[in-house]
Amino acid sequence: MDQGAAGQAVTAAPPLSIAEINSLSADAFVARFGDIAENSPWVAVAAEPLRPFADRGAMIAAFTAALAVTDRGRRLALLRAHPDLAGRAAIAGDLGTESKGEQAQAGLDHLTRDEFDRFIALNDGYRSRHGIPFILAVKGATKDVILAAFAARMGNPPEAELETALAEVARIIRFRLEARVAGPDQADG
Amino acid sequence: MDQGAAGQAVTAAPPLSIAEINSLSADAFVARFGDIAENSPWVAVAAEPLRPFADRGAMIAAFTAALAVTDRGRRLALLRAHPDLAGRAAIAGDLGTESKGEQAQAGLDHLTRDEFDRFIALNDGYRSRHGIPFILAVKGATKDVILAAFAARMGNPPEAELETALAEVARIIRFRLEARVAGPDQADG
Repeated sequence: MDQGAAGQAVTAAPPLSIAEINSLSADAFVARFGDIAENSPWVAVAAEPLRPFADRGAMIAAFTAALAVTDRGRRLALLRAHPDLAGRAAIAGDLGTESKGEQAQAGLDHLTRDEFDRFIALNDGYRSRHGIPFILAVKGATKDVILAAFAARMGNPPEAELETALAEVARIIRFRLEARVAGPDQADG
Repeated sequence: MDQGAAGQAVTAAPPLSIAEINSLSADAFVARFGDIAENSPWVAVAAEPLRPFADRGAMIAAFTAALAVTDRGRRLALLRAHPDLAGRAAIAGDLGTESKGEQAQAGLDHLTRDEFDRFIALNDGYRSRHGIPFILAVKGATKDVILAAFAARMGNPPEAELETALAEVARIIRFRLEARVAGPDQADG
């Protein structure tokens, strides 16, 4: 449509408009957006009946409302469904496509042996202190920024970390929806 | 359970706990809370899959999220589903039970002929200017307060009034859920 599209990865599906999203069947909606929250399709299932959405911001608000109102058990399950950052999940190769892309942008796919060992140790320490994986929306961050965040958050009270992790999940959801849904400045379709 | 319950109307059902609400079937949930938004059961239908709720505040947030994210057409339909305040709907006798109680608390069931005529005229003027009924959470308000709000809001730009009316609907929803759902200071059950 214009030159702005030239920089996008050729493998990404074109963004859907809100009108298109509002007219999807419930099943098609969940099939299309069930992976927005990492390994937690229930978030899309919960957001779906909030359609028709007024705009992309409203769609993002619907997904994050689902996190905001749910009970502690489901929040913990959501957080625990996240893979370790640059850690064991990456070794085992079971990162989702978007996770992989996000971690590559941050340079986490090119760690030295030492850096990698350091991430593993930080992940393990964080997990045993807080009972959840370390979750950070890595978009725009470098590995140094991520290591600094690790150090800063490691010593927080676990209850505060639950809230921080949930806020990071909300940011991840926002970035993913902004990549997949046309915004108010983009033509429909 | 304690003396706090003595002041409640004997006809009101006892508040449900969040644990009870989280364990209702979807149909039972909608049957029980489909009238929280005036003549708009879809709000409860949309909020239902956001369960399990963390607490009463989260349940209120789920209902108001449904208003906040939905598109303009559905917002307008929701606002237009509200009866006129102290107006024609009251004459026709088709106010919901809670609406009736709320309007009675504000003294709207004991208007003089002149006051009543004034409300009718205000309602009609508001409706023709803004395209929606005048909506105000009347809890705690007297008829003089309501008349003053009418005068203050009549001249607002219609787009601003849409937002104000929606905020009033959110307040009505909150008051109703606070009356029907046990809060954090009340024992479960």
